[in-house]
Amino acid sequence: MTDLVRDYRLLIADVYELAGLSRRISEREAAGQGTTVARWHVLSAVSDEPLAVPAIARRLGQVRQAVQRVVDDLAEAGQLRAESNPAHRRSLLYGLTPEGARLLERLWDASEAPRLGMLDDSGVSAADLRQARDTLRRLTTALST
Amino acid sequence: MTDLVRDYRLLIADVYELAGLSRRISEREAAGQGTTVARWHVLSAVSDEPLAVPAIARRLGQVRQAVQRVVDDLAEAGQLRAESNPAHRRSLLYGLTPEGARLLERLWDASEAPRLGMLDDSGVSAADLRQARDTLRRLTTALST
Repeated sequence: MTDLVRDYRLLIADVYELAGLSRRISEREAAGQGTTVARWHVLSAVSDEPLAVPAIARRLGQVRQAVQRVVDDLAEAGQLRAESNPAHRRSLLYGLTPEGARLLERLWDASEAPRLGMLDDSGVSAADLRQARDTLRRLTTALST
Repeated sequence: MTDLVRDYRLLIADVYELAGLSRRISEREAAGQGTTVARWHVLSAVSDEPLAVPAIARRLGQVRQAVQRVVDDLAEAGQLRAESNPAHRRSLLYGLTPEGARLLERLWDASEAPRLGMLDDSGVSAADLRQARDTLRRLTTALST
């Protein structure tokens, strides 16, 4: 194995570990707000702009069917609403309702202080976070093409 | 939300996306070698040294029960073997058998060229990979304590 590929594989192992750890922590926080991490993540994914199910699934690294179920549950709970998609007639876009936006705000608020404390402990700076993001985005783009 | 927490959340979203994408690509490659991504990842996790199921699960960001099932399947297939654990009598350590090591070698060989090509396309350097790893490790450590 070349060194570059070895470094890449080690990074991906760290990506899996961090993803799993973050998900478990978020699961506890979501339960504290009477929801689930799956719902929280879908609400987060559409917080900037309404998205279709395949785009949400891609962003969350999940399979489409699982995301569709969560989207349906959120729509039934009045936290997401469907809008027609100008680009694809048959694929609806899902965006936050005011109730969904309030729940997401509560989830973010409840986790803000512990995250800040953790970031302080880690010694990781905003520049470190952005540098890591840039590397991960470039890998995601290259893997997608 | 503070900027630092916002940057952290954006990074975690990228972590989820990359984890999901990498898993789907590995799933196809594993199928090409007659195995599954779940088995491949367990074999990788113990390639440096034998580990107990909880340690494998942590490294893969998976729940322990799912990893235990895969470990049992790999042991039955003769690709993993159990060793006694000097630290915890009741928790076995699992390491590669020669057959498991050969399968892992085939999986790595088959994915080497596409990964090198992807890394080349991404323009990401070994230094970028190591910097991102360092940031992810520090976050994982801080989140674990």
